[in-house]
Amino acid sequence: MKPLGIGLIGTGFMGKAHALAWRGARAVLGRNLPETRLELLCDTPADKARDMADQFGFARATDDWEALVRDPAVDVVSITTPNNLHHRMALAALEAGKHVWCEKPMALTLAEAEEMAAAAARAGTVTLLGYNYIRNPAFRHAQKLIAEGRIGRVVHVRGWVDEDYQADPDLAWTWRARLADAGLGTLGDLGCHLVSLVVGLCGPIESLIADTQIIHQTRPLPDGSGRGTVENEDTATAILRFASGAQGSISTSRSAWGRKNRLDVEVHGTKGMICFAQERMNELQLYINEGPKGEQGFRTILTSPEHPPFGAFVPAPGHQLGFNDLKVIEAGDLLAAIRDGGAAYPSMADALGFERVIHAIADSARAGGVRVSLG
Amino acid sequence: MKPLGIGLIGTGFMGKAHALAWRGARAVLGRNLPETRLELLCDTPADKARDMADQFGFARATDDWEALVRDPAVDVVSITTPNNLHHRMALAALEAGKHVWCEKPMALTLAEAEEMAAAAARAGTVTLLGYNYIRNPAFRHAQKLIAEGRIGRVVHVRGWVDEDYQADPDLAWTWRARLADAGLGTLGDLGCHLVSLVVGLCGPIESLIADTQIIHQTRPLPDGSGRGTVENEDTATAILRFASGAQGSISTSRSAWGRKNRLDVEVHGTKGMICFAQERMNELQLYINEGPKGEQGFRTILTSPEHPPFGAFVPAPGHQLGFNDLKVIEAGDLLAAIRDGGAAYPSMADALGFERVIHAIADSARAGGVRVSLG
Amino acid sequence: MKPLGIGLIGTGFMGKAHALAWRGARAVLGRNLPETRLELLCDTPADKARDMADQFGFARATDDWEALVRDPAVDVVSITTPNNLHHRMALAALEAGKHVWCEKPMALTLAEAEEMAAAAARAGTVTLLGYNYIRNPAFRHAQKLIAEGRIGRVVHVRGWVDEDYQADPDLAWTWRARLADAGLGTLGDLGCHLVSLVVGLCGPIESLIADTQIIHQTRPLPDGSGRGTVENEDTATAILRFASGAQGSISTSRSAWGRKNRLDVEVHGTKGMICFAQERMNELQLYINEGPKGEQGFRTILTSPEHPPFGAFVPAPGHQLGFNDLKVIEAGDLLAAIRDGGAAYPSMADALGFERVIHAIADSARAGGVRVSLG
Amino acid sequence: MKPLGIGLIGTGFMGKAHALAWRGARAVLGRNLPETRLELLCDTPADKARDMADQFGFARATDDWEALVRDPAVDVVSITTPNNLHHRMALAALEAGKHVWCEKPMALTLAEAEEMAAAAARAGTVTLLGYNYIRNPAFRHAQKLIAEGRIGRVVHVRGWVDEDYQADPDLAWTWRARLADAGLGTLGDLGCHLVSLVVGLCGPIESLIADTQIIHQTRPLPDGSGRGTVENEDTATAILRFASGAQGSISTSRSAWGRKNRLDVEVHGTKGMICFAQERMNELQLYINEGPKGEQGFRTILTSPEHPPFGAFVPAPGHQLGFNDLKVIEAGDLLAAIRDGGAAYPSMADALGFERVIHAIADSARAGGVRVSLG
Repeated sequence: MKPLGIGLIGTGFMGKAHALAWRGARAVLGRNLPETRLELLCDTPADKARDMADQFGFARATDDWEALVRDPAVDVVSITTPNNLHHRMALAALEAGKHVWCEKPMALTLAEAEEMAAAAARAGTVTLLGYNYIRNPAFRHAQKLIAEGRIGRVVHVRGWVDEDYQADPDLAWTWRARLADAGLGTLGDLGCHLVSLVVGLCGPIESLIADTQIIHQTRPLPDGSGRGTVENEDTATAILRFASGAQGSISTSRSAWGRKNRLDVEVHGTKGMICFAQERMNELQLYINEGPKGEQGFRTILTSPEHPPFGAFVPAPGHQLGFNDLKVIEAGDLLAAIRDGGAAYPSMADALGFERVIHAIADSARAGGVRVSLG
Repeated sequence: MKPLGIGLIGTGFMGKAHALAWRGARAVLGRNLPETRLELLCDTPADKARDMADQFGFARATDDWEALVRDPAVDVVSITTPNNLHHRMALAALEAGKHVWCEKPMALTLAEAEEMAAAAARAGTVTLLGYNYIRNPAFRHAQKLIAEGRIGRVVHVRGWVDEDYQADPDLAWTWRARLADAGLGTLGDLGCHLVSLVVGLCGPIESLIADTQIIHQTRPLPDGSGRGTVENEDTATAILRFASGAQGSISTSRSAWGRKNRLDVEVHGTKGMICFAQERMNELQLYINEGPKGEQGFRTILTSPEHPPFGAFVPAPGHQLGFNDLKVIEAGDLLAAIRDGGAAYPSMADALGFERVIHAIADSARAGGVRVSLG
Repeated sequence: MKPLGIGLIGTGFMGKAHALAWRGARAVLGRNLPETRLELLCDTPADKARDMADQFGFARATDDWEALVRDPAVDVVSITTPNNLHHRMALAALEAGKHVWCEKPMALTLAEAEEMAAAAARAGTVTLLGYNYIRNPAFRHAQKLIAEGRIGRVVHVRGWVDEDYQADPDLAWTWRARLADAGLGTLGDLGCHLVSLVVGLCGPIESLIADTQIIHQTRPLPDGSGRGTVENEDTATAILRFASGAQGSISTSRSAWGRKNRLDVEVHGTKGMICFAQERMNELQLYINEGPKGEQGFRTILTSPEHPPFGAFVPAPGHQLGFNDLKVIEAGDLLAAIRDGGAAYPSMADALGFERVIHAIADSARAGGVRVSLG
Repeated sequence: MKPLGIGLIGTGFMGKAHALAWRGARAVLGRNLPETRLELLCDTPADKARDMADQFGFARATDDWEALVRDPAVDVVSITTPNNLHHRMALAALEAGKHVWCEKPMALTLAEAEEMAAAAARAGTVTLLGYNYIRNPAFRHAQKLIAEGRIGRVVHVRGWVDEDYQADPDLAWTWRARLADAGLGTLGDLGCHLVSLVVGLCGPIESLIADTQIIHQTRPLPDGSGRGTVENEDTATAILRFASGAQGSISTSRSAWGRKNRLDVEVHGTKGMICFAQERMNELQLYINEGPKGEQGFRTILTSPEHPPFGAFVPAPGHQLGFNDLKVIEAGDLLAAIRDGGAAYPSMADALGFERVIHAIADSARAGGVRVSLG
């Protein structure tokens, strides 16, 4: 297999994470992954693109993303631009027959996301959405424990995902607050991650009831000309029914002071419980109703080579992965799918399922909390 | 003021807690509280009552609760019997003109609870329901911080209350599973405590949508004759709208492995956040958006004499109160109300408000999650 | 057995704790304990003694401790006065044939402590020193786990006991800083507690090397007339060799900002580890090298009725004991010893062993860290 | 500046960490760092070297480390081989005029380490020892807080570094147990890391007293022919006096069940306290005696862009670095020193100071705990 040419659009938070992942994936995860060539990087203006290409080690730079997605030397396109551009870029890349690694959420509207999933189906290339938290060895171990029945039948689940980047009442109004530019609020930024975890642990969601809230109804306009309206939700909460019969609830806030990357989930089973918290991403809490009663308790499992692919990063337990390592695993999963001619998870089609959930939450809330069915 | 005669009905978990509270209240909290005389204890059979009266230091014993509530030497009646007896006993005690300290929940049905509140209003004596967790100095400090505006305007709240006493699928069927005997399930046992916390921190609830779940639909009958039906909920979850405009959610499970006395609440404000967890009842977590950004973080406040009435128990910070100490504070609040001719909180009338919430949750769930208004 | 008459000297922190323990012991722990009568309370001035006797429920009050220890209606004497009075009071009480419950440390000097132990041996009554932390059900469970071999052979131990009551450099000079009045510094206040834990978990100490430190060499005199010299240690650290062959270290500070009642110990065994922290006194951390490697981790055991005598306080797991409850257990142990004509632990003789350790630490440090043998 | 040619010796735990760091440093930390070229990788046998060069992206491979250190295309040599080879390889690389990045500990004996430091002085190239934990933004923030006086004068420090890779009594004997092959035991593997932290926070150590312990005196020989003797220490503990007047203690064990990468340090100051724990490497605990007493507590600071160079990895707070990221920072520091013609910290000379401390601990212990002076 000849080395895969990588094209990267965007060099911000996620752009850099993709760049580092592309640089690290095969070095970390091994020679059974295809080789890659950092071919083309796109940002604007052009000199910024050149500087970042130099820093990240890309061979060429451009300020024209349409050129990038058509470039014959580019086999895989990383889309890390603001949410409102995902749709257009992904469609173009898919149409050009490229594999696509696109950041979440897919798009501003469900209609756009559906269009993307349809385009991916037509293209037949490998697609992957950037749900990095489900790459965590701790999370995968939770899935394995559940699959093995260690906590019995899953009966209940709870999850929260919170940050505080919109907590300050005095923060200026930005495009993030406008439906037309940003789409959903905290549901799109954070909530969809939680959905990916909950579905990954408990299976598909059947129906839900929900409520949302705009805490800061207006914010000062940056030009001092008054206050702009906040059009999308600061918090959202839903009560879920799963296809399996389990129930649960999820809640998200982008205005939760002190929460920096809180993404917690607890899974209740008939024999035990598993809890995970992203702010302590190298730990898993496990309670199993076995052994002497007087010795039972939640145990804090530190991730280790027992939890693949942790050992590919460090062979020593307790030595910890970081956020960027999750992206390395994600890139590795994408490369393996390309190598094997298979599908990566979550593909555009899979991720559309997550998007349906967050839009169902918004729909239920808009209607005052009525039950919305999924699937 | 002559010493108040105490009559105690019941000697189980809560009976003992009341007995110890009566023994400790004035010794701990000081001479400005009225003196008490442990006058009469009721349990069945009579010899058990005698033994427990001896152990707890009550002067007399009886197996006739109706005699106790009428006894002229009894001024205050502690009702600590199973939930289905609260209604009858409280009505009788109130009719006899006694002050009443009754364990929660008030009754099996809202109608009964309303009857009790009406009887209390007629009697004009002091009534107090056993919502012990709101006595915690850590909780009171949370209330004080909120009242002082330390976390700004309260905008969101989340809470959970879980235990695992019904988690084991093989546990035998008991009266607890029958609506006619036990009333609500986890909502009555645990959920109402959480309501008392949430209302205490965020004010009255305006409306809610909810869902409940019976995890173990049947349980083995103790006599081996088959399986009995579980009629009341194992879990319940509600999304709340508060009169203040805040939103939030609460969830409870009696089948949550590993949770022994989990009662957590987190209050989101526009300037900070407060979190409390009963399993670490001597701690309070506080985040405030002030000071250098690089030094901000949740701080773990250990309860201390700075948090009254902690200092009445131990003058040294970090030396910790226990569960029974909460009941001592509760008894002290009741004694102070009797001394002052005032009302204790939560009285029958106040607690009726908590009961309305848990019944509204059950009602919403029964109707598939429709919005139910309160007050 | 006729009710035991209790005499209490002192009504401060520990005086109140003893009073509450006397009030609670039999009510909590049961009718197999002897009955007690709160007979006589001593404090100065006399009217304070009267007020506190009223509050605590003692029948009589006095300002003459010598009268109290001789009083024929007093069978047991609780000594809770400042450390420099323990020696004199205990000798007098023992000479009068009383059982003695004395707060730690025994005395200011080892010679005095030896004298007390000798007097106790002569008197033949029951003596008990106030090492309350070893009463904790969590601690007792740790001892049980070790005795059962759950963590294998104990090979190493570490402990810390810290508070911050002398952390502030601007704190005024008091008698606590003078050797003649206070004896040892942090070793006497805090260190001896840690010794009681370490010895209780790992057995007798054979030899040690140590160092101590006076952080604040002088403090402002309260009358503003200059600065007084601090004569006793703010911190002390020792490296221990145990008779069993285990090694370990302990360290204490009374000037450790943020530590309110830190008393931590970790016991390393050949099969596992146990950790305990008094600031979370209802928890025990246990790691055992058994079960699947990928599931191993420290488990947090919440104290419960599985850990006697927790269940005598509350029958529900996770509902927590407080500091004063430890004193109730202590009083119960003393009462049981009196009932059985046996010895309580730690008696004056046992506690003398703890005092030898803290004085050996001071001796080693004074000599620059030379090895000091014990026993 | 032309790209620096990197030569890497070893491809194990640390070899991979160096390789990833070389790949990531400039991409993460920016274009102001010199460019690097992954030139030559050495391992044995030769085909393993070729495979790893392919995986890590090195241009060439060799099984001859002496050729590598002499290779004119190699400017910097990464030495990640077992400890007993550091000395020989570092001397050769320095003699060849290369910059050297060498893993810790420097050598098996102090004499060898001294020889290396002398060679480094002669060579005048940049040297750096692999004390990765002091690269942590959390640790650097602790240093900054101390330098700014946020916790006042540092008066006391405690630290522990523990793992459990030698905890199992049934583990086979290896070369690690032989002084001639491995040198010191836990002091060389783990203890020196702790020394780097403690010195980094509190300055140079003046003298110490210490004890060490071999827990498992013999281990089964791998060939089943009996048991081999363990010649180096499983645990070591020292009480320290610092040049500043502060005191403290450190302890290390390689046989501490449940500890995977425990490396904790707490620094006591006259105004506050800082605690750090490597197993939660993205957190810092800070207590400062300021603000309302009732709100004081240890705050958990999550690392963020406020703590450089965290933001170079992820611009979002709480998103966490991992172990390998520390090596990226380390590589960046080395590159910056080469660029600036300055020195990196800790150089061979600096690291010799850490080695002196661990050997002084061994010396003190060997002599029964006598005081050993440093510097």
